[in-house]
Amino acid sequence: MGDSIVAGSELTDRTNVITGKLKQIYRKSVLPVEKRYKYDYFYESPLLTDVEFDAKPQVLLVGQYSVGKTSFIRYLLGRDFPGQRIGPEPTTDRFTVLINGPEERTIPGNALSVHPDLPFRGLERFGVSFLSRFEGSQMPSSVLRSVTLVDTPGILSGEKQRTNRGYDFTKVVSWFAERADLIILLFDAHKLDISDELKGAIDVLKGHEDKIRCILNKADQIDRQQLMRVYGALLWSLGKTMTSPEVARVYVGSFWQEPLKNMDNSELFEMEEKDLMKDLAVLPRQSAVRKINELVKRIRKVKTLAFIIGHLKAEMPTLMGKEKKQAKLIADLPNVFRTILKKFNLAPGDFPDIAGFSAKLRDTKFAEFSTLSQKQIDALDDVLNSDIPALMEQLPSEKDSPETLRAK
Amino acid sequence: MGDSIVAGSELTDRTNVITGKLKQIYRKSVLPVEKRYKYDYFYESPLLTDVEFDAKPQVLLVGQYSVGKTSFIRYLLGRDFPGQRIGPEPTTDRFTVLINGPEERTIPGNALSVHPDLPFRGLERFGVSFLSRFEGSQMPSSVLRSVTLVDTPGILSGEKQRTNRGYDFTKVVSWFAERADLIILLFDAHKLDISDELKGAIDVLKGHEDKIRCILNKADQIDRQQLMRVYGALLWSLGKTMTSPEVARVYVGSFWQEPLKNMDNSELFEMEEKDLMKDLAVLPRQSAVRKINELVKRIRKVKTLAFIIGHLKAEMPTLMGKEKKQAKLIADLPNVFRTILKKFNLAPGDFPDIAGFSAKLRDTKFAEFSTLSQKQIDALDDVLNSDIPALMEQLPSEKDSPETLRAK
Ligand SMILES: Nc1ncnc2c1ncn2[C@@H]1O[C@H](COP(=O)(O)OP(=O)(O)OP(=O)(O)O)[C@@H](O)[C@H]1O
Ligand SMILES: Nc1ncnc2c1ncn2[C@@H]1O[C@H](COP(=O)(O)OP(=O)(O)OP(=O)(O)O)[C@@H](O)[C@H]1O
Ligand SMILES: [Mg+2]
Ligand SMILES: [Mg+2]
Repeated sequence: MGDSIVAGSELTDRTNVITGKLKQIYRKSVLPVEKRYKYDYFYESPLLTDVEFDAKPQVLLVGQYSVGKTSFIRYLLGRDFPGQRIGPEPTTDRFTVLINGPEERTIPGNALSVHPDLPFRGLERFGVSFLSRFEGSQMPSSVLRSVTLVDTPGILSGEKQRTNRGYDFTKVVSWFAERADLIILLFDAHKLDISDELKGAIDVLKGHEDKIRCILNKADQIDRQQLMRVYGALLWSLGKTMTSPEVARVYVGSFWQEPLKNMDNSELFEMEEKDLMKDLAVLPRQSAVRKINELVKRIRKVKTLAFIIGHLKAEMPTLMGKEKKQAKLIADLPNVFRTILKKFNLAPGDFPDIAGFSAKLRDTKFAEFSTLSQKQIDALDDVLNSDIPALMEQLPSEKDSPETLRAK
Repeated sequence: MGDSIVAGSELTDRTNVITGKLKQIYRKSVLPVEKRYKYDYFYESPLLTDVEFDAKPQVLLVGQYSVGKTSFIRYLLGRDFPGQRIGPEPTTDRFTVLINGPEERTIPGNALSVHPDLPFRGLERFGVSFLSRFEGSQMPSSVLRSVTLVDTPGILSGEKQRTNRGYDFTKVVSWFAERADLIILLFDAHKLDISDELKGAIDVLKGHEDKIRCILNKADQIDRQQLMRVYGALLWSLGKTMTSPEVARVYVGSFWQEPLKNMDNSELFEMEEKDLMKDLAVLPRQSAVRKINELVKRIRKVKTLAFIIGHLKAEMPTLMGKEKKQAKLIADLPNVFRTILKKFNLAPGDFPDIAGFSAKLRDTKFAEFSTLSQKQIDALDDVLNSDIPALMEQLPSEKDSPETLRAK
């Protein structure tokens, strides 16, 4: 297994090289165009910073208290981590972000949320009582070179959820879920009230069903027939609660470092673990592909925006009647779009929404717009036609992904 | 296992003695009262015949073609049965009722549907093209002394269902489902499109969800991890499709006489089979309890009806103004009910629905009603207070039910 970790790290490094290049492309060829044509204003989307490119894929652990979330993380890491607390009562009392770093230490939430290299700035909005329940746990780890893990306090039943915490638990989980590449929802096979447990969890994760994978943990504590019942009950409830048509993937097993209590299903558990580890191991590659795709989409949109703005600017009279002409152009926007679409051979899907865009235009002065820079456009085309395909080539292939990220 | 069959048959015999006595009670003490006060007219419920008491609990087998319905029956009976057809294509082309009888033979649908001792009269309404696809299969069998099995043609996918058969398949299944004590819905673990399969079946069984038990058959044809996936997918879909809040019971195994192909799960399958066989073995007792309960309900209702009719009759003037008085009594029905309720210490739940009952009354002549017979009422009270409790005493206790009905 040592081999596949080395291989895994190596692959992660190769992936990091690629996202690093992506970042340079953005800075050099895309960002100047975005600024020139006010992409952030027209699309209400902030300009990208390094953090968006450097951020590792995030895995969010969610579940009732004591289902084994923290133990699962410990198991993945193959070691204890700073600030780790495991125990039978509700133990984890804070959101803990596990990140790679040279020395072992915990980082307080306040510092973490303003760290320029980490993607947690948005968390400031949840206030000081949340930040005092937010912590980083840093250590050198091959696993954390590939992914960032997010441990969460156990979900409590309905009433308790809303009171007592001092911050809006549901909204915080939702914030992390939005940014996660994978959400692992854990259940304890040994406990009875799965359907209740589930309702709470699904409520919290609403809208992110596609990223959810489930673990039916501690499955070695019960016999095979009981396991079938519990597993069936879980899928029955998931079917009732989740809106997606595809069956939710539930990994059955016991994910901690202790030996199995009941060996009946050891083979099944092994296969399940293999599948889950593979699901985790492909995340770095998946995340790089996602970043590339998102940049491509963004470039196509900014290119289209450049043509629109350049066109509107060019239509402006040199001396008088600017305001009247501007109003006329806005009223005629559908035709303007059609003209540009044909002239520059663009895709309809890359154009902004007419109503929203008109509203934005009304608050601007076309006369102050920048003219079209063909040089910039050529540079964007170069990125789309050569740089990005070259990067895709360099991506390790799916089947070269390691078998596991887990440290042993 | 031989022992438990003997015990099973003995128990069935004891249960039959009890339903026999129930039938005598009905004929002697209840039927005359029902006739006297026109129970069938007021409750739109036919007077009971012997068949209702003698009918054995029915088990209905439903599922797509080739899932193993007929093989399951063969397995339960421990032998081939007259008219049996098993095979990989759609084979069973008729509804087949398996009943106990001294000689082995098939009985054509026409004869079966008019047989005075069998509860299939209602099927005539589905016409000759159905009756030619309806058959009895009779043989001496310890299993069939306890239950009647109903084999059905495989459900076809949507379109084919409605055409080609020459009768309304869905309505016929529904007719049997209405009268069944247990519905066994079979699935083939080896086939892929469970969710499609399921939709067809659940459509057909709408409204009878509480009686459904599922079998995931041929489960020895796949490995353990595949089985978990299929089982999970089945429960996921069941959860989405069925309206009941309790998890559907799905028995996993391979229910035919051949040895298991894959021994991985043999222990699990054995436990599952035990549970299923137990579910079947308690049917005769359950069915007797149900018959007793239904008779008790009926007696309470007929007793209340007797008081109402007797009261209305007694209120009639001897000479003039009958019609006016009758109209007044009908208008005042809520008060009439209240008076009787108090005077005779009856339960509100035993009274008929006021609106419906008023409508019925309007088409009658109170003057022609029978007077209250205290002797008959006393007899009904005797039945409720001594005969029925004595019968309940004689019922074999739940835990004395045999382990299985299956013949080996
Ligand atoms: N696979 C497992 N099998 C059996 N017991 C386990 C397993 N994983 C964890 N446990 C035990 O379950 C208890 C809870 O574990 P842990 O603290 O990891 O859960 P948690 O989900 O992080 O809980 P909390 O939400 O309170 O932080 C501990 O006593 C731990 O030793
Ligand atoms: N438990 C089992 N494991 C493997 N194969 C089985 C099993 N039970 C039945 N089969 C095979 O499956 C095929 C279909 O069986 P069978 O005719 O009993 O199904 P059916 O549900 O009655 O089909 P139909 O609806 O067409 O009547 C047959 O070839 C039979 O031998
Ligand atoms: Mg924890
Ligand atoms: Mg058949």
